[in-house]
Amino acid sequence: MSSVDRQLEELEAEIKSEIPSDISVSAVKYEGPELVVYTRDPKKFAQQGDLIRQLASKLRKRITVRPDPDVLSRPESAREQIMDVIPEDAGVTDLDFHADTGEVVIEAAKPGMVIGRHGSTLREITKKVGWTPEVVRTPPIESSTVSNVRNFLKQERDERRDILERVGRQIHREEMSNDEYVRITTLGCCREVGRAAFVLSTPETRILIDCGDKPGAEDEVPYLQVPEALGAGATNIDAVVLTHAHLDHSALLPLLFKYGYDGPIYTTEPTRDLMGLLTLDYLDVAAKEGRAPPYESEMVREAIKHTIPLEYGDVTDIAPDVKLTFHNAGHILGSAVSHFHIGDGLYNVAFSGDIHYKDTRLFNGAVNDFPRVETLVLESTYGGRNDYQTDQEDSERKLIEVINEAHEQDGKVLIPAFAVGRSQEIMLVLEEAMRKGKIPSMPVHLDGMIWEATAIHSTYPEYLRDDLRDRIFHEDENPFLADEFNHIDGGEGERQEVADGGPCIILSTSGMVEGGPIMSWLRHVGSQEDSKMVFVGYQAQGTLGRRIQNGWDEIPINDRGGNGGRSNTLKLKMDIHTVDGFSGHADRQGLEDFVRTMNPRPEKVLCVHGDESSVQDLSSALYHEFNMRTFAPKNLETFRFK
Amino acid sequence: MSSVDRQLEELEAEIKSEIPSDISVSAVKYEGPELVVYTRDPKKFAQQGDLIRQLASKLRKRITVRPDPDVLSRPESAREQIMDVIPEDAGVTDLDFHADTGEVVIEAAKPGMVIGRHGSTLREITKKVGWTPEVVRTPPIESSTVSNVRNFLKQERDERRDILERVGRQIHREEMSNDEYVRITTLGCCREVGRAAFVLSTPETRILIDCGDKPGAEDEVPYLQVPEALGAGATNIDAVVLTHAHLDHSALLPLLFKYGYDGPIYTTEPTRDLMGLLTLDYLDVAAKEGRAPPYESEMVREAIKHTIPLEYGDVTDIAPDVKLTFHNAGHILGSAVSHFHIGDGLYNVAFSGDIHYKDTRLFNGAVNDFPRVETLVLESTYGGRNDYQTDQEDSERKLIEVINEAHEQDGKVLIPAFAVGRSQEIMLVLEEAMRKGKIPSMPVHLDGMIWEATAIHSTYPEYLRDDLRDRIFHEDENPFLADEFNHIDGGEGERQEVADGGPCIILSTSGMVEGGPIMSWLRHVGSQEDSKMVFVGYQAQGTLGRRIQNGWDEIPINDRGGNGGRSNTLKLKMDIHTVDGFSGHADRQGLEDFVRTMNPRPEKVLCVHGDESSVQDLSSALYHEFNMRTFAPKNLETFRFK
Repeated sequence: MSSVDRQLEELEAEIKSEIPSDISVSAVKYEGPELVVYTRDPKKFAQQGDLIRQLASKLRKRITVRPDPDVLSRPESAREQIMDVIPEDAGVTDLDFHADTGEVVIEAAKPGMVIGRHGSTLREITKKVGWTPEVVRTPPIESSTVSNVRNFLKQERDERRDILERVGRQIHREEMSNDEYVRITTLGCCREVGRAAFVLSTPETRILIDCGDKPGAEDEVPYLQVPEALGAGATNIDAVVLTHAHLDHSALLPLLFKYGYDGPIYTTEPTRDLMGLLTLDYLDVAAKEGRAPPYESEMVREAIKHTIPLEYGDVTDIAPDVKLTFHNAGHILGSAVSHFHIGDGLYNVAFSGDIHYKDTRLFNGAVNDFPRVETLVLESTYGGRNDYQTDQEDSERKLIEVINEAHEQDGKVLIPAFAVGRSQEIMLVLEEAMRKGKIPSMPVHLDGMIWEATAIHSTYPEYLRDDLRDRIFHEDENPFLADEFNHIDGGEGERQEVADGGPCIILSTSGMVEGGPIMSWLRHVGSQEDSKMVFVGYQAQGTLGRRIQNGWDEIPINDRGGNGGRSNTLKLKMDIHTVDGFSGHADRQGLEDFVRTMNPRPEKVLCVHGDESSVQDLSSALYHEFNMRTFAPKNLETFRFK
Repeated sequence: MSSVDRQLEELEAEIKSEIPSDISVSAVKYEGPELVVYTRDPKKFAQQGDLIRQLASKLRKRITVRPDPDVLSRPESAREQIMDVIPEDAGVTDLDFHADTGEVVIEAAKPGMVIGRHGSTLREITKKVGWTPEVVRTPPIESSTVSNVRNFLKQERDERRDILERVGRQIHREEMSNDEYVRITTLGCCREVGRAAFVLSTPETRILIDCGDKPGAEDEVPYLQVPEALGAGATNIDAVVLTHAHLDHSALLPLLFKYGYDGPIYTTEPTRDLMGLLTLDYLDVAAKEGRAPPYESEMVREAIKHTIPLEYGDVTDIAPDVKLTFHNAGHILGSAVSHFHIGDGLYNVAFSGDIHYKDTRLFNGAVNDFPRVETLVLESTYGGRNDYQTDQEDSERKLIEVINEAHEQDGKVLIPAFAVGRSQEIMLVLEEAMRKGKIPSMPVHLDGMIWEATAIHSTYPEYLRDDLRDRIFHEDENPFLADEFNHIDGGEGERQEVADGGPCIILSTSGMVEGGPIMSWLRHVGSQEDSKMVFVGYQAQGTLGRRIQNGWDEIPINDRGGNGGRSNTLKLKMDIHTVDGFSGHADRQGLEDFVRTMNPRPEKVLCVHGDESSVQDLSSALYHEFNMRTFAPKNLETFRFK
């Protein structure tokens, strides 16, 4: 008998001894980090209000109770009973029964009303029909990404359960080593921005954190070929953790599955969906530009299938010796500061991922409060000695000024923006400014994936700032649904019309002017002297965005884009502005504040994800200010902490 | 056509254009780092005195010329002609003809007389018979190791040539990567003494430097299982470099072949032989102590078969982007400071291995003069702030005092010593002291492998200090042949006789009292109050030697040794002395001097191979004294230098 089976046998015995004798336990299994308890008496389980919570705390496991398939009531009758229990206002749009696991997935506009106070409505459902309910939100704005992901996972449910069971047994395997160490290996994003990738390793476990590309340098990928990365191949990685969906953190994650990786990806639910959206687009862009994509879209689906979503604050076993907890990072939707508790009190490491320390319109500021943390791996995008951003209030004022100026001279405002994050922040600014009459009401055209990304934001309001979340819950106040917003879905024809028309605002991808519809917009309005181009986000070295920002005004442009297009030069005549307070990144002050107020303060900080001078400035400042050991690692180094 | 074949074709064309048209070239091949040129006109080649040297310098390759097999004169007639050319005094003991390569191996007591001034006699031989002569020394003291190794290599000649050809093609393969980096990964001997192992890696190449065990902690082996070590398995290592034969650097080298490694080991010729001797003994000791040996003796033979011996000062291509040069390290016979020149002027790293900076009786002091060196990996055995050794002169005086004292009270002197290195140093001291009358002439019993190790020393006098080398060349002055030295080859009976007899000196292994005949000697003479035990070498933490040195006098001792022996306690009554000036290691002063006078001075120093406090003391002292970047790495870290 394997050690996992022995463990499960002991757990089953312990559960039986803890619950009333009239409740049966027919099987106990791991599925990913969860312990699944099968019972012939799901209704009785549900009647004992707090029983599951008590068990979870006693066994120190996440517990799900499921009915034995053969005690389930028939879906047809269950459907009726369930609809009876749920208030009509909840807006149920779908019920999906899975007899193999006894789960029923309820999609509703207002999930809270399906759950009820402290889960009372859910328990009521189980008491009535025996099925275990699971609730998801109906996207308030239709999102093809969300519905594709959900349909795909529904379709792959069987295989997914196999994966989860295998992962569950791996997580709970017996520890084999007598040795103790905690190491971090840098595979990318050191003394540079882009290709984020780290390996956290112990004698038992190897975890890959992020796996991105490098904007402006597509051939500079993380060092996956060095032996530190994947050991004797991708199958030697125990788990992958994704801090957020931006391509410089996620782009090459699907590649792992091409290399044979078959394990879990831990991330938040919105990051999973955004990663799907962005990586598929990444393949698309590569194809359009005539580059060989590093993997097929099939691998993106594999990545989604292997994702185990975690919520902020969930402490989760991801290996025999590692617990992972995500916390809000304030950077983009679903972005997470990732905290690793290693061994039984041996060591704690937090990876900041990308963070924004202060509250923004979209998100609460990054969490920096942990039970323990000895080492922090900190992003340093704006870590340079002069990287202070203006306050967002000032930035908003400045943006409004620029827009008003353009409007007065009948011009347009072209804003290159990442589909995910800054676009929605700017949308919120514009919606309020128009609502409050600070700028005239005018069309705001959203091009590229901005619309779709916005739909995903409104699907996961729990991840947004409190007051925004509340507004989205009331459909008539959802700022993303304001009349001025127009989704560009008519291609070049519609763009030409916009270009020929009156004053307006255009938000378009890509955010660093590296391709995508922004290139069309440059062709259409780039030579309009009365129009303005406004940069609101970070422009990496080597990108066209950075060059325009630095004053280049002759821009190489393909007439049709992609292979075979003739290469011309466009003379840029728009006014170029930079309004830098909207970054999704903490500025130098924010980074220092994050460390200053961090609780507890870490002993060591690795400054990563910044240009050479930024990481060195920040590393030296933190050392002098807080007397901690700080490092500015190079790629391909390994640090040992214990 | 592979890139190597193309390269060989070009080389062949270039050689043909460089040599007189009446000399034919029938084939050009790589064998290990050498370029072998086959010709149908070996005699003409030999007549053009300097031709080979000119070619080598023109092509920047090491070149060997061999006759085509079908132009060779018959061995029977060649033998006679060769013996005619070589002066009788050379003392030829064997001629061995290899028709497949056209080589004749000449074993002689005085190789210099076979070679002749600037190789004139060798050329004379080729001119006469066409064969390519190769010369080896007849051991002045019979050595079973040397003759076993030579016979084994003779027997495996065919397979060895296949290995060399394969290695040769690998060394000269085309470079594949556009990237540039130089990294060192620490797999052992950091903040500890023992289990030396490093990986030096570039995008092209991975080189393992040393692979030892840890005395006193047999379960603490180098971290060969982490992916940095062997990549995707031992076959991903391009080359192994062995700095010297002591087991804390060599013991686990044969294990690599069990793991599937099939590449070269670069080391000096005496280190190869000593490694054979010491690793076979290591297996023996493990078996005697009832431990499972990590590999079979077959793997030691594999290691020997894969060894490519290099001489001090030879600059050798060992990978497309790495040149290796060995320099005398002054530590033990064949020990080498290993200098790596990486890329075309990209970077230079020197690994000190174990060093002795000053001249000793056996060896010249360590070389610290290099064309370039940016990073030094420096041993720190005696790097602690108080690790100053007395001058060897004082130490010798002290040793002589102790011996005279023991002799006066009719006692014996028991000296635990490493078979290799310190034993021979002490032998030289004792021989001189008796010859000059500073101590009475008395028997010096050599137990364990000391005799055999001494025989190996006298086989390679080129590696010894100049004046000692000269003395060995004259048999009547060979100090190792002094009458007082007695090889203990009669087992326990002989030991009992010695113990019951009069004053004498006993030199016995193991040097840290971890097993071997020293345990017998403790049983035989440990309770003799008039006798003395003298430590002359480093005693690692955790060894019995260190404990006795620290005052322990109750010693657990097996009556018969090995499995099933009853365990008793012996009360140690001998006087315990430590005379520390004989160490094979530089002391703190020596280490500082090595760095101070190093030319050029390195930018960075990694202090390794020392107890925690020693590496930290030394690292901090070098930093303050020389204003260089210094590190005291932990095991399992990776440093990137470019």
